[in-house]
Amino acid sequence: MTDLFAGIEAGGTKWVCMVAAHPGDIRATTRFPTSQPGETIEKAIQFFKEEIHNSGLKALGIASFGPLNLNQDSPTFGYLTTTPKPGWADTNLLQPFQEAFNLPTGFDTDVNAAALGEARWGAAQGLSDFVYLTIGTGIGGAAVVNNTLVHGLIHPEMGHMLIPHDLDQDPFPGVCPYHSDCLEGLATGPAIAARWGEKGENLPPDHPAWQLEANYIALGLANLVTILSPQRIILGGGVMDQKQLFPLIRTRLQENLAGYVPAREILEEIDRYIVPPKLGSQAGVLGAIALAQEAAGSA
Amino acid sequence: MTDLFAGIEAGGTKWVCMVAAHPGDIRATTRFPTSQPGETIEKAIQFFKEEIHNSGLKALGIASFGPLNLNQDSPTFGYLTTTPKPGWADTNLLQPFQEAFNLPTGFDTDVNAAALGEARWGAAQGLSDFVYLTIGTGIGGAAVVNNTLVHGLIHPEMGHMLIPHDLDQDPFPGVCPYHSDCLEGLATGPAIAARWGEKGENLPPDHPAWQLEANYIALGLANLVTILSPQRIILGGGVMDQKQLFPLIRTRLQENLAGYVPAREILEEIDRYIVPPKLGSQAGVLGAIALAQEAAGSA
Repeated sequence: MTDLFAGIEAGGTKWVCMVAAHPGDIRATTRFPTSQPGETIEKAIQFFKEEIHNSGLKALGIASFGPLNLNQDSPTFGYLTTTPKPGWADTNLLQPFQEAFNLPTGFDTDVNAAALGEARWGAAQGLSDFVYLTIGTGIGGAAVVNNTLVHGLIHPEMGHMLIPHDLDQDPFPGVCPYHSDCLEGLATGPAIAARWGEKGENLPPDHPAWQLEANYIALGLANLVTILSPQRIILGGGVMDQKQLFPLIRTRLQENLAGYVPAREILEEIDRYIVPPKLGSQAGVLGAIALAQEAAGSA
Repeated sequence: MTDLFAGIEAGGTKWVCMVAAHPGDIRATTRFPTSQPGETIEKAIQFFKEEIHNSGLKALGIASFGPLNLNQDSPTFGYLTTTPKPGWADTNLLQPFQEAFNLPTGFDTDVNAAALGEARWGAAQGLSDFVYLTIGTGIGGAAVVNNTLVHGLIHPEMGHMLIPHDLDQDPFPGVCPYHSDCLEGLATGPAIAARWGEKGENLPPDHPAWQLEANYIALGLANLVTILSPQRIILGGGVMDQKQLFPLIRTRLQENLAGYVPAREILEEIDRYIVPPKLGSQAGVLGAIALAQEAAGSA
């Protein structure tokens, strides 16, 4: 009998639930808007109960927006913590599903789960060390090192790294409420919109906004390369739907590193070093399926 | 019978060789200047042969200056690669010792080995995720994630991360031949000497050099925190002998993060979060002993 897994992409705007063995064997999917916690969680539970009658379901994975408490020794492990989303702060995401299904359950951030999905079925197959960066409304990052996700003290917050900002070239002060001109403050979708007075999707591909955007992203990537030495970097998120960014970023990253990291992958094969994700619009919920598989494996 | 390990700290200026069970049971140590490769390696081999007659020696560890080829699938694994040190480029460091002793042999960068030593016996005991940064003639960094050293594509080169550089406050252009004003270009001992026209060790503790130095280091640490989420950061190297830097760096790091990372360790216990190494002047060769123990464990 095929092992089936349940995955939940718990987003701030919508939830996606899936029952699947793997991306080539998807049995059911549903999506619904994120309302209040109790109601939203109940909808997800009902979907799984109807779809599988709890038979043959091997494990569950929850990939959630954050910030999350991922510390298994903490009494509030499995909680959404300080989110500004009304009604959702201090929500226990894990317990209702454990009570409903009593299954091994994986729980992690949306970007960590998406990285795991890319490792299993996408752009990071066969790699032990890589970074997955999503650039959209915010900038989130996941790192896999020696085949395991980086969590550490809490979890990475790569969007908030500090990079050079040439105020003569770009006097825009940045939009991050904490750090003004950290990477997230300079390079998210909202930063582009605030700087140019127009949403990025309305700017033509040859607009100077994209060269500047590529500059900032490539500064961030130089820091990821020097600190984590990844074998590949995957760039996803809404901003990266602007495909003209990829060649600009690759060139600027090589310039930033200036030949210092003597790796063929960077010097000669940069087109395969900086890549888009492969799982596309299902990356989030397939990441949750990957979390479920991990949970089953370690249970 | 006590298991004994051989360790070599292979530096560009001197080599240190040690036979020990652990830091509390050191049987023999020697140090000699680094001359030509053949002669230097032979001295180390002779020392170990005389000290232990190859009996009871469980494994060997080599902690070397770099850059090194650490890719075990490469035909030149175990080589020093492009070092500017005359005579040492393309030196096979591993093979002569394997031929002489036929023992499990650990091989890694000096800073990776030192981090391993701090994990076993020093300032990182009991931690799964930490960073060890040495700030001296250069800036080297090692990261441990989920109890394993980060290697990835090559190995980290944290000194070369790119950080904000306020040219109005500090017009000094930086000394890195590759990146000018990367962290290493702005904050090493040679950068301090070039900026102020005086070696750091001759500047008084209240000289403005140290506030600026703390600023740059704390910018680098903010990036290490946001990218790696370490449970602790150890700061060693000659520049960090200026102990007045520690409180300045701690304060500036908290300011840089601006409360964004909600961890008690950073918000309330920063004195235990940013610390000096514990193994002191023997950190290098004890790191090599730690490499030997790893090699024995995985053999």
